[in-house]
Amino acid sequence: MSEFNQPLGGNEMPRFGGPATMMRLPTQTTAEGLDAAFIGIPLDIATSNRPGTRLGPRQIRDESRMLRPYNMATRAAPYDSLQVADIGDVPINTFNLLKTVDIITGFYDEVLRHDCKPLTLGGDHVIALPILRAMAKKHGPVGLIQIDAHADINDHMFGEPIAHGTPFRRAQEEGLLAKNKVVQIGLRGTGYAAEDFDWCREQGFRVVTAEECWYKSLEPLMAEVREQMGDTPVYITFDIDGLDPSIAPGTGTVEMGGLTAQQALEIVRGAWGLNVVGGDLVEVSPPYDTSGNTALVGASLLYEMLCVLPGVKRRD
Amino acid sequence: MSEFNQPLGGNEMPRFGGPATMMRLPTQTTAEGLDAAFIGIPLDIATSNRPGTRLGPRQIRDESRMLRPYNMATRAAPYDSLQVADIGDVPINTFNLLKTVDIITGFYDEVLRHDCKPLTLGGDHVIALPILRAMAKKHGPVGLIQIDAHADINDHMFGEPIAHGTPFRRAQEEGLLAKNKVVQIGLRGTGYAAEDFDWCREQGFRVVTAEECWYKSLEPLMAEVREQMGDTPVYITFDIDGLDPSIAPGTGTVEMGGLTAQQALEIVRGAWGLNVVGGDLVEVSPPYDTSGNTALVGASLLYEMLCVLPGVKRRD
Amino acid sequence: MSEFNQPLGGNEMPRFGGPATMMRLPTQTTAEGLDAAFIGIPLDIATSNRPGTRLGPRQIRDESRMLRPYNMATRAAPYDSLQVADIGDVPINTFNLLKTVDIITGFYDEVLRHDCKPLTLGGDHVIALPILRAMAKKHGPVGLIQIDAHADINDHMFGEPIAHGTPFRRAQEEGLLAKNKVVQIGLRGTGYAAEDFDWCREQGFRVVTAEECWYKSLEPLMAEVREQMGDTPVYITFDIDGLDPSIAPGTGTVEMGGLTAQQALEIVRGAWGLNVVGGDLVEVSPPYDTSGNTALVGASLLYEMLCVLPGVKRRD
Amino acid sequence: MSEFNQPLGGNEMPRFGGPATMMRLPTQTTAEGLDAAFIGIPLDIATSNRPGTRLGPRQIRDESRMLRPYNMATRAAPYDSLQVADIGDVPINTFNLLKTVDIITGFYDEVLRHDCKPLTLGGDHVIALPILRAMAKKHGPVGLIQIDAHADINDHMFGEPIAHGTPFRRAQEEGLLAKNKVVQIGLRGTGYAAEDFDWCREQGFRVVTAEECWYKSLEPLMAEVREQMGDTPVYITFDIDGLDPSIAPGTGTVEMGGLTAQQALEIVRGAWGLNVVGGDLVEVSPPYDTSGNTALVGASLLYEMLCVLPGVKRRD
Amino acid sequence: MSEFNQPLGGNEMPRFGGPATMMRLPTQTTAEGLDAAFIGIPLDIATSNRPGTRLGPRQIRDESRMLRPYNMATRAAPYDSLQVADIGDVPINTFNLLKTVDIITGFYDEVLRHDCKPLTLGGDHVIALPILRAMAKKHGPVGLIQIDAHADINDHMFGEPIAHGTPFRRAQEEGLLAKNKVVQIGLRGTGYAAEDFDWCREQGFRVVTAEECWYKSLEPLMAEVREQMGDTPVYITFDIDGLDPSIAPGTGTVEMGGLTAQQALEIVRGAWGLNVVGGDLVEVSPPYDTSGNTALVGASLLYEMLCVLPGVKRRD
Amino acid sequence: MSEFNQPLGGNEMPRFGGPATMMRLPTQTTAEGLDAAFIGIPLDIATSNRPGTRLGPRQIRDESRMLRPYNMATRAAPYDSLQVADIGDVPINTFNLLKTVDIITGFYDEVLRHDCKPLTLGGDHVIALPILRAMAKKHGPVGLIQIDAHADINDHMFGEPIAHGTPFRRAQEEGLLAKNKVVQIGLRGTGYAAEDFDWCREQGFRVVTAEECWYKSLEPLMAEVREQMGDTPVYITFDIDGLDPSIAPGTGTVEMGGLTAQQALEIVRGAWGLNVVGGDLVEVSPPYDTSGNTALVGASLLYEMLCVLPGVKRRD
Repeated sequence: MSEFNQPLGGNEMPRFGGPATMMRLPTQTTAEGLDAAFIGIPLDIATSNRPGTRLGPRQIRDESRMLRPYNMATRAAPYDSLQVADIGDVPINTFNLLKTVDIITGFYDEVLRHDCKPLTLGGDHVIALPILRAMAKKHGPVGLIQIDAHADINDHMFGEPIAHGTPFRRAQEEGLLAKNKVVQIGLRGTGYAAEDFDWCREQGFRVVTAEECWYKSLEPLMAEVREQMGDTPVYITFDIDGLDPSIAPGTGTVEMGGLTAQQALEIVRGAWGLNVVGGDLVEVSPPYDTSGNTALVGASLLYEMLCVLPGVKRRD
Repeated sequence: MSEFNQPLGGNEMPRFGGPATMMRLPTQTTAEGLDAAFIGIPLDIATSNRPGTRLGPRQIRDESRMLRPYNMATRAAPYDSLQVADIGDVPINTFNLLKTVDIITGFYDEVLRHDCKPLTLGGDHVIALPILRAMAKKHGPVGLIQIDAHADINDHMFGEPIAHGTPFRRAQEEGLLAKNKVVQIGLRGTGYAAEDFDWCREQGFRVVTAEECWYKSLEPLMAEVREQMGDTPVYITFDIDGLDPSIAPGTGTVEMGGLTAQQALEIVRGAWGLNVVGGDLVEVSPPYDTSGNTALVGASLLYEMLCVLPGVKRRD
Repeated sequence: MSEFNQPLGGNEMPRFGGPATMMRLPTQTTAEGLDAAFIGIPLDIATSNRPGTRLGPRQIRDESRMLRPYNMATRAAPYDSLQVADIGDVPINTFNLLKTVDIITGFYDEVLRHDCKPLTLGGDHVIALPILRAMAKKHGPVGLIQIDAHADINDHMFGEPIAHGTPFRRAQEEGLLAKNKVVQIGLRGTGYAAEDFDWCREQGFRVVTAEECWYKSLEPLMAEVREQMGDTPVYITFDIDGLDPSIAPGTGTVEMGGLTAQQALEIVRGAWGLNVVGGDLVEVSPPYDTSGNTALVGASLLYEMLCVLPGVKRRD
Repeated sequence: MSEFNQPLGGNEMPRFGGPATMMRLPTQTTAEGLDAAFIGIPLDIATSNRPGTRLGPRQIRDESRMLRPYNMATRAAPYDSLQVADIGDVPINTFNLLKTVDIITGFYDEVLRHDCKPLTLGGDHVIALPILRAMAKKHGPVGLIQIDAHADINDHMFGEPIAHGTPFRRAQEEGLLAKNKVVQIGLRGTGYAAEDFDWCREQGFRVVTAEECWYKSLEPLMAEVREQMGDTPVYITFDIDGLDPSIAPGTGTVEMGGLTAQQALEIVRGAWGLNVVGGDLVEVSPPYDTSGNTALVGASLLYEMLCVLPGVKRRD
Repeated sequence: MSEFNQPLGGNEMPRFGGPATMMRLPTQTTAEGLDAAFIGIPLDIATSNRPGTRLGPRQIRDESRMLRPYNMATRAAPYDSLQVADIGDVPINTFNLLKTVDIITGFYDEVLRHDCKPLTLGGDHVIALPILRAMAKKHGPVGLIQIDAHADINDHMFGEPIAHGTPFRRAQEEGLLAKNKVVQIGLRGTGYAAEDFDWCREQGFRVVTAEECWYKSLEPLMAEVREQMGDTPVYITFDIDGLDPSIAPGTGTVEMGGLTAQQALEIVRGAWGLNVVGGDLVEVSPPYDTSGNTALVGASLLYEMLCVLPGVKRRD
Repeated sequence: MSEFNQPLGGNEMPRFGGPATMMRLPTQTTAEGLDAAFIGIPLDIATSNRPGTRLGPRQIRDESRMLRPYNMATRAAPYDSLQVADIGDVPINTFNLLKTVDIITGFYDEVLRHDCKPLTLGGDHVIALPILRAMAKKHGPVGLIQIDAHADINDHMFGEPIAHGTPFRRAQEEGLLAKNKVVQIGLRGTGYAAEDFDWCREQGFRVVTAEECWYKSLEPLMAEVREQMGDTPVYITFDIDGLDPSIAPGTGTVEMGGLTAQQALEIVRGAWGLNVVGGDLVEVSPPYDTSGNTALVGASLLYEMLCVLPGVKRRD
């Protein structure tokens, strides 16, 4: 028997039964003793278009029941290597966004106190800000790999500094991001100004628009990213709307012409070897995910993030 | 040609075309010159369970295309009697609930300044509080006919005084409601305390639980309500979850065993003769309204409210 | 073994397999030798609001797989008594409504030549006109039991004399309906004029509004209808929107406050003893019938019509 | 703080977050120390028409997040009175029905060993047989209150003695049911023989067809049932298809004309005072439950069963 | 403040509120003073398979709320350059296809009289014929860029010369298309004859099958098309079924193996520099577009057409 | 008039009408006189995650109504060349998997006795085992082209040797597969052991993972496969989950990152010239196929298999 927690197997309990936790892992209430933890943030009050990401964590967990322990493509064996559990949801205040942002930071401070790497099931993208605040307290400014249709660097939305389109503006202003270590992949669509992406470039972010990714493997890009990041602690923030809506229909601010599933896998797998300190998968909106497949794509990408955490062995 | 605005007819433009306004009425940007106005409040950030009421106004308007000008049951002819338009949506701040509540009050102050009766397409039920604030400024404390599965008189939700479960507690505390002129119809379900409805009764509210309504015409009840209200200005607040979920599946905080469509019509039609000063229809959540019929029920009930406004003639 | 066609049983082929015919009956291409025939008319080009009834016959047949041969409530045994088959669809011209109307009449002329009673799977309600034309040729003017939210007696729609809102105006004008033998049950909603239903009454139609039906068994009504009809040949035309949209959400011109499923069964079962010469079930729109249950309600009502055809025995 | 487990409250964790257990109760792996337990059986391989009940337990638990601890109608306070937990799912063998039936009996033998009352989230109705086998071992033959569209007393289905249409035939043959203590409510629809319900009557079952229930409160019926049952141990088996499909669209073998939500509540609440030893709610099929409301109705009825267990106090 | 109409911004009104016009632009009832106009044609009576395109204009408008004014990929700034409005829907006669075709031509004659470029929200593809008739009156025979799964050059459908599979046969016969200036991109699937596409080639159309597009950027193709078209007035007709159904599931005559979203953007953006005189986006069928994303793809492509109209400036 | 059965054309009967058989072909009850037959197997009891494939045959047939007789890409003319019919469904025993497996073998033995090539509409993938048993009896061990996300070579599932994850393990053990003539294309995802695919390779199977297919035409692969197969009888087994879930969302065991529609067509078209003796398309699950497009993709791939059967002519 393994020393580590194992996902409940399909030969012990049918996949459609058993606990509706991430990958049907055991739960615990704190991060104590864990190398990595799945955490849900059931939040959608910072969303500017379609609602529903509040139900993201529940549906990602539900559909994650399909995932088995081993990664057939990379031969990664995360459950042979790390102690992992689902530690449940952050108890956000759904009526008050500002209080919620602080509740999240507090929760992650506590998780990081245990040297546990958080993998977060969103929730809308505003959650990246309070997580990065906790991350920077622990690790100093972090490198960032952001997959997204939108730069999320608005100064304000409807006059508010905190919303799902502003987290990386705030993070940059607050010094949470390592200099020249931010990569944004998949940006596209329409904007409030043709100059919208220029601010990013002025900050030294590497902007890789969706158009630059079309018809191509992203393995070469990720080789460059690995070079760029070196051994800086890196956080991965994956907005599911970075993907083309054909791959991930169940989201709120949809932009046509996005990344493919193949590219998504290449990006996350391409983080292998980096000093990944955590990640999130945000903006899955179950009411718009009529087959459940967007949630399953989200769950799969969180699993792939687990597979590239430092310390995960790969079978020969 | 009528002196009044008319809904665009199905013989001029197919029902599935034309402007997506309430009943395909003309729009204007203020309430000037209007006897009654349809107003949308696209808000769901005070919702405690399923999201989606932010899209309520859009879908109620869309499905309202089926409605023709005359009421076949009551022979009411609202568009022969009143000047009515759709004056669009309140520009809420979707990231900040407290600011939004004040934006709404301000908007209704302005509408009421024109002696225009507002009929509101919600949005979640929190909107009743800022509307009642404006109403009470104009009319003094008002009588209230509330159709709802829930009393919505929680003191707090998650520590917050403002949420979709608290508006009538706040309204009562602030003196917005006329003494002994509050009727709550359709209450049921589970509660945080078996005493939850007792607070209402202590305030002098008439509580008519769903169970008291089963298998019965509500015409006798409404006769009593008319007696009770006399000529006090009366506001109608209709939470679609007062209806059984078979009638109105597309809503967020569902309780089985509710009112029937027939009873809903009897309640609103039973307000004929009262000094109705406005009304709302809240908690339609389009993502859970897979056929669109909940929105159409909502649109129909708003139309019935229009038909009982003072001054509406009935054809012989 | 029975001398009559039998529905394919669930112990010979799983209900979710086998031919997608009405009740999984055998098919034939003409009505020859049949006492009754199920016929589809895949038409929606006369629809004024939501589309989709073109797919009604396919989905009614699909969902009819649940129906077994015996009627547990009335003990009717139609397949012990009559030769019944599914004779497929009328090959309508979906690009030309006027031609289609004549194609339908021609098809039913041929069916009636075989003394076969047609039970029709609609399609939108315009189909009642060409069917009644064939019926009247065969039987003379017929009595009519119409279940419907709408009287369907508009003079024109968008200037056209033929559309799904006009068939009974045309039928009356053309003398297809027996004098004082028309009953319309379930009418309600809004109208282009408060006088809309008055034309019906002036023609001698019995108008039973939905409001007159609320909270009541319709058995007494049907006793009166049987009296009224006597031994006149009677045609039953059942627009699924006569039912409350909670019972039959999958339809195109929805009106809240309609008949219950119980009342629908009482109406059709109440036709037992009449000289029923055919019937139809129209306006099922599969794209709005997300569970398939509207189609199944439609199939069940068609089965109940079969059960009241003259000659059907009832088991003791 | 209560000595008993409490459902996680909406003021501690938003309703759309927290564990996806029944009513967000704590879990444990055995029934030890429990007065009552919620148990899932994720099974649909005995279903004869639409699939999907395998996902019933997951979705009933998910939607049960809306339920608060107190029953506003009956003032029952189950969590002031009993120790209750969610003990997860029975690990059925989804490829082999006969083995699964024995796995279930084994699981319930163990639950009953702890004097714990099981409330089961189905799954299709075949599960009633193995549960009744365990019940009869513990309690001797039990009284049965069955709410259902179908009698489920087929001798065989497709030649098999075990399927979702046969459990009560087998139970009666095996002597699991107390003599003259079986009540079947809501039967209706079509059958393989007009005599289908007669077998039940010959066994001394009380058959209450749906037609006998129309337009009526069932409180008088339940008074008779209480008289009939006396202090015999009683098991409640609630097939959601006993309800009209408007109330519970998400199920597999749909029959129009069923019980109302009001009647469903009257039946379960009417069991108050009986020696209820367990209950189940079966046949919720999430793929056909597009709004989730069928699952929520199911969850509510399971909660009402909890509220009528012996020992549950009612607040004054 | 701009001299031109601007889309209502998300910081003035939440995206889920405000008028349901194209991009939340102002409306006017004629094309007077406009450089370009969005126009809806709510028509599906020429459709041969699934219905629903009648609702296309309403849903394209609804989902277009996501679009902001600037094109991030091309830096086009259409609202800095042109006066644009939504001028509503063509009042078609939904019961009579032939009359409808003439109504459309009349409507576009009037639009073109104002030198306004129409961008049309379909509707099924039959609408291209009456639009082209108006176009040819104004401009003489036009070049055509058709993106489509089907050539739509049937001689007849069901014996009718006018249907959604015939418009370009009629257009060619009537001399509406410029010689050697027709390009059809994305053709594929099955046919009534293996020679179906040969007629096109015989007419001098350039047929680019889907298979010829697989795995490739279409920028080189569009360079050739620009060469071919020269300064001839060009009309773009985009049938959403030209796209792979993974990208645009919500349509009626689906063919697997189509164009990607990337290719769609390349085609429309590749028309930059041509003398584009109008365009349409047809065959979005909302009942089959369960997430709304097909409508959003349609809206995005219409926006991209706007961005390539002559006179649109691009920001540096 | 052709000597061969023809699909019912859209100019004889609208596509949304007519019999719901595969491509609206004639039916017959045996394979007598047929060169090829479409056969349904309505089975999902061997499924390990989401249910629903029992409805696959019905929905594939329904959506196949779009398919016309000629293949525009390959110019194949199957209905000029072969006698084809839909011979209905295999009457499986849905309550007993082991009996069902034998029923299937018996059914295919009988089909093959007529030298008819079966093209099967699944059902879950377990059906490949009994079909291969019949195939091997007729042809000896066959070559296998398997398109799939999963190798389906588990030794057991939940202790059972027969389930939808085991057929090719059993087939190999039973000697049904020709040595070095098995190709598995599209494998990916997670596994119970990093070694899961190694067993296949040890058996001499060619494993082409999805990752090896990314960004590439599969024509070169198929050239190699044709070389490898030579003139061995070849069976094609196409699990729809081999495709990326964006292409085929309606299935039960979803894995992101799969084959494209283009690659699927290349694979089946690439079998042209092989001695194809039959094929199947499995794992379409209609309840998860909200648009019907997965079923249509399935129907299209079955049609493409028909087009590569030996003896099918191609038009010049």
